[in-house]
Amino acid sequence: MEYQHGGDIYSQEVDLDFSANLNPFGLPEAVRRAAADSLGDCTVYPDSSSRKLTAALAAYHGVPQEQVICGNGAADLIFGLALALKPKRALVTAPAFSEYEQALAAVDCRVSWLDLREQDGFRLNPRELLEKLSGEPQLLFLCNPNNPTGVSIPREDMEWVAGVCRKQGVRLVVDECFCDFLDAPESCSLIPFLEKYPNVFVLKAFTKLYAMAGLRLGYGLCADGELMERLKQVRQPWSVSSVAQAAGLAALGETGYVRASTEAIARERRWLSGELTRLGLTVYGSEANYIFFRDPAGADRSVRGRLYEALLDRRILIRSCANYRGLDNTYYRVCVRLHEDNEILIRELERILAGADHLERQE
Amino acid sequence: MEYQHGGDIYSQEVDLDFSANLNPFGLPEAVRRAAADSLGDCTVYPDSSSRKLTAALAAYHGVPQEQVICGNGAADLIFGLALALKPKRALVTAPAFSEYEQALAAVDCRVSWLDLREQDGFRLNPRELLEKLSGEPQLLFLCNPNNPTGVSIPREDMEWVAGVCRKQGVRLVVDECFCDFLDAPESCSLIPFLEKYPNVFVLKAFTKLYAMAGLRLGYGLCADGELMERLKQVRQPWSVSSVAQAAGLAALGETGYVRASTEAIARERRWLSGELTRLGLTVYGSEANYIFFRDPAGADRSVRGRLYEALLDRRILIRSCANYRGLDNTYYRVCVRLHEDNEILIRELERILAGADHLERQE
Repeated sequence: MEYQHGGDIYSQEVDLDFSANLNPFGLPEAVRRAAADSLGDCTVYPDSSSRKLTAALAAYHGVPQEQVICGNGAADLIFGLALALKPKRALVTAPAFSEYEQALAAVDCRVSWLDLREQDGFRLNPRELLEKLSGEPQLLFLCNPNNPTGVSIPREDMEWVAGVCRKQGVRLVVDECFCDFLDAPESCSLIPFLEKYPNVFVLKAFTKLYAMAGLRLGYGLCADGELMERLKQVRQPWSVSSVAQAAGLAALGETGYVRASTEAIARERRWLSGELTRLGLTVYGSEANYIFFRDPAGADRSVRGRLYEALLDRRILIRSCANYRGLDNTYYRVCVRLHEDNEILIRELERILAGADHLERQE
Repeated sequence: MEYQHGGDIYSQEVDLDFSANLNPFGLPEAVRRAAADSLGDCTVYPDSSSRKLTAALAAYHGVPQEQVICGNGAADLIFGLALALKPKRALVTAPAFSEYEQALAAVDCRVSWLDLREQDGFRLNPRELLEKLSGEPQLLFLCNPNNPTGVSIPREDMEWVAGVCRKQGVRLVVDECFCDFLDAPESCSLIPFLEKYPNVFVLKAFTKLYAMAGLRLGYGLCADGELMERLKQVRQPWSVSSVAQAAGLAALGETGYVRASTEAIARERRWLSGELTRLGLTVYGSEANYIFFRDPAGADRSVRGRLYEALLDRRILIRSCANYRGLDNTYYRVCVRLHEDNEILIRELERILAGADHLERQE
């Protein structure tokens, strides 16, 4: 099966990876140390219920512990949800993270698409949502802020969606994996409203915020006890490694790291957005730790787009959005990295685009 | 969901755990070091194809690399197989590792049981197997050597089973997770015959042999390319953490550790079996790194058996086999540990049984 995501630094020679949306400040030292210390406990099976970690997460979010479940990355829970719910019909936005569709396909679910359109700024259109809900999907996946667009849905709108879904008996899975990178995460998150909307399941990950993608740790929050029990029944007891549990526990103490890094990323996002715009690229106002943009003059026959190809020649990897439903090879996504890396990206893109102009003038 | 396995040292106060079948010599130092070194790479996503590790495993087993797939423990692949194959009917031995049934239940598969009987020494009865195969299961799970009994099926018999299954279009999943603890693993393993029996999928784990249960790493071997592809489609791309990949790669170099530890375990198995027999317990001749036995006078009303309860009072955890299909609370399994630990187990069991005799005499 072909790899369809960012972060594929194993198939090609890459010096700078802008394709995976990870915190560029790297694994916090306390997390690395906790993970290293935990190796002494790795001779035995991990706690199948991740008791210490779920207790800490419950305290962190102010929810009861039984409303928290950990997974081998958020992706583990996406597949777990598909298997626990086995929906016949589901609704997914386009574009969106492709694992939603893959997980639904694994249980033979028919997927309908809720198109997010460029003319709407890739925002959710409430009228279209209602129309699509009339098709009686059992499950709706929303990502907030969305990936790859970086567009967020305000909490009032999310509450409206959750209410409509609740009324129609639709399970709403909200992927808030990038929520912590927003200037005001609390302006979007449904976590304070789990009791009110037991049809809502919120997905979270340590992966991006703490740059620990290689350790695999995500979690889910939901007030529906039956679903939580069912999730445990459809997967192995030891999904979450001892290392990931220890690392997650340490990460929750890293509030200083989170504040400092997300503030720096927000500054860099503004700088990088401005520079990409200056280069003539169409930037779609992402609010997360990545920027979604289009190369308006870039339509060509390459599979992944001319900027992807030209940057890869320079050992820089960006995310071509050509394989997202509803997008094509003129769309890209780049992670916001440290300033010196972002400067290299802009410098190389400037050269590439100047060269392309030059070529176009010659033709 | 109630935890149904050995190794649950998180729900109770335990000093000595005989309930999980792990190599008592602990994580080899080179593996611990490789895992610790890998933490520096954990800021990025793991290689979704575990390329270096699958290449090393392919070389280790002498099979093509595309016949190897890694998982988040062997249990991850058990659930993956159930989801990839979605069998309507399957056949599982009783007793057996309960995850086979749980994974099949997750895809609504009807499970039939192939009883392994005490009067047959818990050995596979070929006539009964043929009878049960006439019920047209699409999948058969066999564990060799079996868990919890420790009884192995010789390779010639396994070849016969594989051939019968191939002829009838039955997928045969052989769990060889404990095979390396046998005196002669090659006398049982079907790995050299994968090409001949593409209906066979062999499960292996690093968990037990290298005492790395907390790191989560297992793998599967199969010559059916279509099934391997399907397995990749029904699960997330990043099942296997970077730490597990690095640890596994280092573990494959630990041939000295494997030889020395399995030899020592075999010696201890003989000693422990002899002592358990001396105490009046019925020992069923396990060939693996654990011993399956019965307390013939131990029928009582306790859920997990009198020896389990009495040892737990002494902070020693053994595996009650009361929740295995076909067994009851007079059956137990203990892992073969280091001699000094095994001596403690025998000493405490002797005291418990003497006390029980004493009580019985008083009644």
